Amino acid sequence: MSRTVVSSHSKELVIGFDQPFCIIGERINPTGRKALAAEMAAGDYSRVESDCLAQVAAGAHMLDVNAGIPLADEPAILAETVKLVQSLTDLPLSIDSSIVEALENGLSVYQGKALVNSVTGEDEQMERVLPLVKKYGAAVVAISNDETGISMDPEVRFAVAKKIVERAADYGIPKEDVVVDPLVMPIGAMGTAGQQAFAIVRKLREELGVNTTCGASNISFGLPNRHAMNAFFLAMAAGAGMTSAIMNPLHEEELTGIKASDVLLGHDKDCRAWIKKYRAPAPEGAEGEGAGRRERRRRRG
Amino acid sequence: MSRTVVSSHSKELVIGFDQPFCIIGERINPTGRKALAAEMAAGDYSRVESDCLAQVAAGAHMLDVNAGIPLADEPAILAETVKLVQSLTDLPLSIDSSIVEALENGLSVYQGKALVNSVTGEDEQMERVLPLVKKYGAAVVAISNDETGISMDPEVRFAVAKKIVERAADYGIPKEDVVVDPLVMPIGAMGTAGQQAFAIVRKLREELGVNTTCGASNISFGLPNRHAMNAFFLAMAAGAGMTSAIMNPLHEEELTGIKASDVLLGHDKDCRAWIKKYRAPAPEGAEGEGAGRRERRRRRG
Repeated sequence: MSRTVVSSHSKELVIGFDQPFCIIGERINPTGRKALAAEMAAGDYSRVESDCLAQVAAGAHMLDVNAGIPLADEPAILAETVKLVQSLTDLPLSIDSSIVEALENGLSVYQGKALVNSVTGEDEQMERVLPLVKKYGAAVVAISNDETGISMDPEVRFAVAKKIVERAADYGIPKEDVVVDPLVMPIGAMGTAGQQAFAIVRKLREELGVNTTCGASNISFGLPNRHAMNAFFLAMAAGAGMTSAIMNPLHEEELTGIKASDVLLGHDKDCRAWIKKYRAPAPEGAEGEGAGRRERRRRRG
Repeated sequence: MSRTVVSSHSKELVIGFDQPFCIIGERINPTGRKALAAEMAAGDYSRVESDCLAQVAAGAHMLDVNAGIPLADEPAILAETVKLVQSLTDLPLSIDSSIVEALENGLSVYQGKALVNSVTGEDEQMERVLPLVKKYGAAVVAISNDETGISMDPEVRFAVAKKIVERAADYGIPKEDVVVDPLVMPIGAMGTAGQQAFAIVRKLREELGVNTTCGASNISFGLPNRHAMNAFFLAMAAGAGMTSAIMNPLHEEELTGIKASDVLLGHDKDCRAWIKKYRAPAPEGAEGEGAGRRERRRRRG
């Protein structure tokens, strides 16, 4: 029973098998968002603010903060952004960069126990990132690729994840503080991507006992009706044991999938969150049908 | 690898672990539908016709046919309905009654290999229904309750299912021809209903090697936003190994859940059915986000 505890200055959050699915809001990220990148590079954080507040309002449990802007001073901007976001919300943050100096800068100003996003299974990366994670008492996302790239073989990705968990332990980081991202492939390009993801998540949970996360929207890359596909993927991944995702909480379909999986996995006591969110009257007839089926069963039972 | 083969006069259908999820259309059923019941009792089958055609058009793989009308001649009406529906569609049928004479009447006019819906684990029921199933070379839905009612303990429901599968074998009915309904409880009343259903489905698949079905809408009884809950339940149940459901194929959300789970479980080759159904252009921005995330991964990998 792995419990990854993260925190802000004033709030603690547990990612775990017995917890509601942890929604890590992905919006504060200039990658692929030219306007946001230009604004952040110019010191204008107004969109960061609105993205922060909107994700909090939508029900995110954590926020990912990324400042990956080509040619900009990423370490300085990441630290600025972390400070700003912490002044706006008490949600714990995931500090997101592929540049180790940026991670360190972000961690140095962070109040609480952050999630570092991320470390790969590359030796050089592990040697640089894991000591930082230990130094700042953080948790870390472990991405299951290494020097050879991303393997198409889920067994290899599992082995890479296992290697990172073991290496983290060598640095004194318990497996509870390693959240594995098994790397979800686009199912339009690889028909087994869903089955692979569910199998590896189940194995990571049962054999390694670690929490897991993913960038959920990858699964639907290139397909129509992406939000629906993402939503069902998230619910099914949760059913297989996934405990968090880096995602856009402003997308209603994905959010509904997660809320439904919380109910169905017994993590929404008395369906309270579901009922609160959806208690507007059900459409005509929906009730009647269910009652009919129920009655029919009763007649038999 | 259990394959339940059913057929009509001209069409064969396989329910199986390697097959798309089998949608058994539930609409031709007067239970809880007063207008339909009155019409069928009076010999007016116009609504049966339209329900049949609408479900075929919506993509049902089989149709359930029920004629349970209090005080009416159910055996005669069921046989009439079966004949009518078989004249309208080549989909295989599930012949649905709790009255053994009605089942026999329906079977006697049915062309092909039907699914008998259903037998319970009650000794008297098994002694009457199973010989019929054998006589007509049909398959059968086994409902996991017995003389003691529906147990709240999933282990007991599993044991009842096992008993029916074994008893069927005594009558010469192979387990491939037994599709177990593990009885899904309303999650609003029993918070563990989802976990129970997923666990028992997985166990039925792994330990007994049988196909499974359910009346999916039970899960959401009493809750708001029922169709969404049903849809995510169906997808997660499919992920746990469920291979069919008795459901309303006219409900778009449930249908989307099943189509998505087909893709995610590798049962929709090259996502063809998904793309065909949803190929209208995706909303602005959806594509860009995924591309951004993908690019970010690539940069790291």
